[in-house]
Amino acid sequence: MPDTLARLDKHGQNEARHRPLPPGAFRVHRPIRFSHTDPAGIVYFPVYFDMFNGVVEDWFTHGLNINYASLILDQRIGLPIVRAECDFVIPSRMGETLTLGILVERIGRSSIGIGITGEVAGTVRLSGRLTVVATALDNFGSIPIPSELRATLEAYRAACGA
Amino acid sequence: MPDTLARLDKHGQNEARHRPLPPGAFRVHRPIRFSHTDPAGIVYFPVYFDMFNGVVEDWFTHGLNINYASLILDQRIGLPIVRAECDFVIPSRMGETLTLGILVERIGRSSIGIGITGEVAGTVRLSGRLTVVATALDNFGSIPIPSELRATLEAYRAACGA
Amino acid sequence: MPDTLARLDKHGQNEARHRPLPPGAFRVHRPIRFSHTDPAGIVYFPVYFDMFNGVVEDWFTHGLNINYASLILDQRIGLPIVRAECDFVIPSRMGETLTLGILVERIGRSSIGIGITGEVAGTVRLSGRLTVVATALDNFGSIPIPSELRATLEAYRAACGA
Amino acid sequence: MPDTLARLDKHGQNEARHRPLPPGAFRVHRPIRFSHTDPAGIVYFPVYFDMFNGVVEDWFTHGLNINYASLILDQRIGLPIVRAECDFVIPSRMGETLTLGILVERIGRSSIGIGITGEVAGTVRLSGRLTVVATALDNFGSIPIPSELRATLEAYRAACGA
Repeated sequence: MPDTLARLDKHGQNEARHRPLPPGAFRVHRPIRFSHTDPAGIVYFPVYFDMFNGVVEDWFTHGLNINYASLILDQRIGLPIVRAECDFVIPSRMGETLTLGILVERIGRSSIGIGITGEVAGTVRLSGRLTVVATALDNFGSIPIPSELRATLEAYRAACGA
Repeated sequence: MPDTLARLDKHGQNEARHRPLPPGAFRVHRPIRFSHTDPAGIVYFPVYFDMFNGVVEDWFTHGLNINYASLILDQRIGLPIVRAECDFVIPSRMGETLTLGILVERIGRSSIGIGITGEVAGTVRLSGRLTVVATALDNFGSIPIPSELRATLEAYRAACGA
Repeated sequence: MPDTLARLDKHGQNEARHRPLPPGAFRVHRPIRFSHTDPAGIVYFPVYFDMFNGVVEDWFTHGLNINYASLILDQRIGLPIVRAECDFVIPSRMGETLTLGILVERIGRSSIGIGITGEVAGTVRLSGRLTVVATALDNFGSIPIPSELRATLEAYRAACGA
Repeated sequence: MPDTLARLDKHGQNEARHRPLPPGAFRVHRPIRFSHTDPAGIVYFPVYFDMFNGVVEDWFTHGLNINYASLILDQRIGLPIVRAECDFVIPSRMGETLTLGILVERIGRSSIGIGITGEVAGTVRLSGRLTVVATALDNFGSIPIPSELRATLEAYRAACGA
């Protein structure tokens, strides 16, 4: 399938988004499990989106030192996803270890654009993006990104060399 | 959250993609279940991508009269997803019934762009797209869309008024 | 795998639990999808437990005329599962249609024993049981089964010929 | 809910199965994520069965030094689950870390009884068991447990003090 995707790239995909992760990016390693794969032996694509959500959690808690569970349960601030997208460049198989890394691509008033790259042994396997919106969970209205979170995100972006 | 998304739309989302389904579109109805929803009470977004895969199956089998299981298991032709994207316009909750409909947006040499719209009571809740590539499952190489499938897809697109 | 299970049965499984569904049992039909199956081509077993939860929802809403979403969201009564078990007798594959049916096996003070049988073309594929406990969602304490629900469950059990 | 379950225990559950893990048991730590939890804020029970499958994978690969992916993909030996059961003793919530540990409870000709206990801070949260059957994936027939695997399992059981 790589050549298939290479061909797609010629027809308008953004190749720049398939760049490897910069050194400063937060990353986690995920074993590809039996349960992640489908009858064709490759990861079933919604599993990647589920992994994305988990990586964002880990990034908040362990990378940004903002407890994600506490943000939601105590502060009642959610980050619902209003847009998700991913290019699946090369399929992954059981027994491989996927490295998922995070980039901050955009910081808006309420919304944050989060790029997520998946690599195996330094080769990009997939390249996705989530757009999340800071939201008061009690009325589901959008709120400005809290200033402390904004400063943390900007520092992270700088550390990644953006 | 609707106003949040309306605001996002002003900043570059393609509003045209949030149009309601045309009458000729294949559609299925899905109950929103307890298991689809998260601690915030709304559908967890990867669930929608899983639903998309199921809707494409049902569309092939019941809308196009091409048995999807037989295509994969007997003909050994797969349709792996090489790109997935979705705008989540309005959240959905347990007890609602989501109508998911299919549009053929693009027919390439090997790839097919499939638009999927989710509505509740005629209001668009989400708007997604899958790009799938006809693939020989034995070597994972892309193949031209079989001519019979191509003709069926073109007829479907015409029936939807595209 | 059937002979494997037959052999297990000789060593202490309860064969009586593998009886076909009685005519009065509530049942739903579920297509076995690509996404339900694993690299061995058979349904990944946790998927059955997820289906069980959905079948119980449908049984409440459509079989017992008790709106399950309303029970949880409005009445704030939950039915958390305190025990789940299943014998997987014969594997199921993509393209098959599984019929799942419900029996009430036990009605306690707070707990309900729900038997769930899965069949394809009249042959038992799996045989499971959920024990749920009526629970006040606001403090997670168990409560007596509300009398109206108890009467409904007893009528259902009688209709199934138990 | 603990008292609910304590009450259930008095009516026939096997309390002995809720013993904490012995020191020699293989164990992994799993963060409870947003995605694992339901609208009631607790882990959705099929998620535990999915975790069980992952823990068995990790136990084979990292605890027993038998590469699980290679067993399935290269040796074409599968370990399909023919029975699964679990008592959910105390619910778990987002932000907690669940320790899952493995015991070998039974080694038959083809089948293996695997006990799995989940703890948070030394308190048992759940107690489950999987029965798997050594299976030739090419014809789905059961096979005797390969002698090397049998020896490894017996050594593991001895190390756990069984």
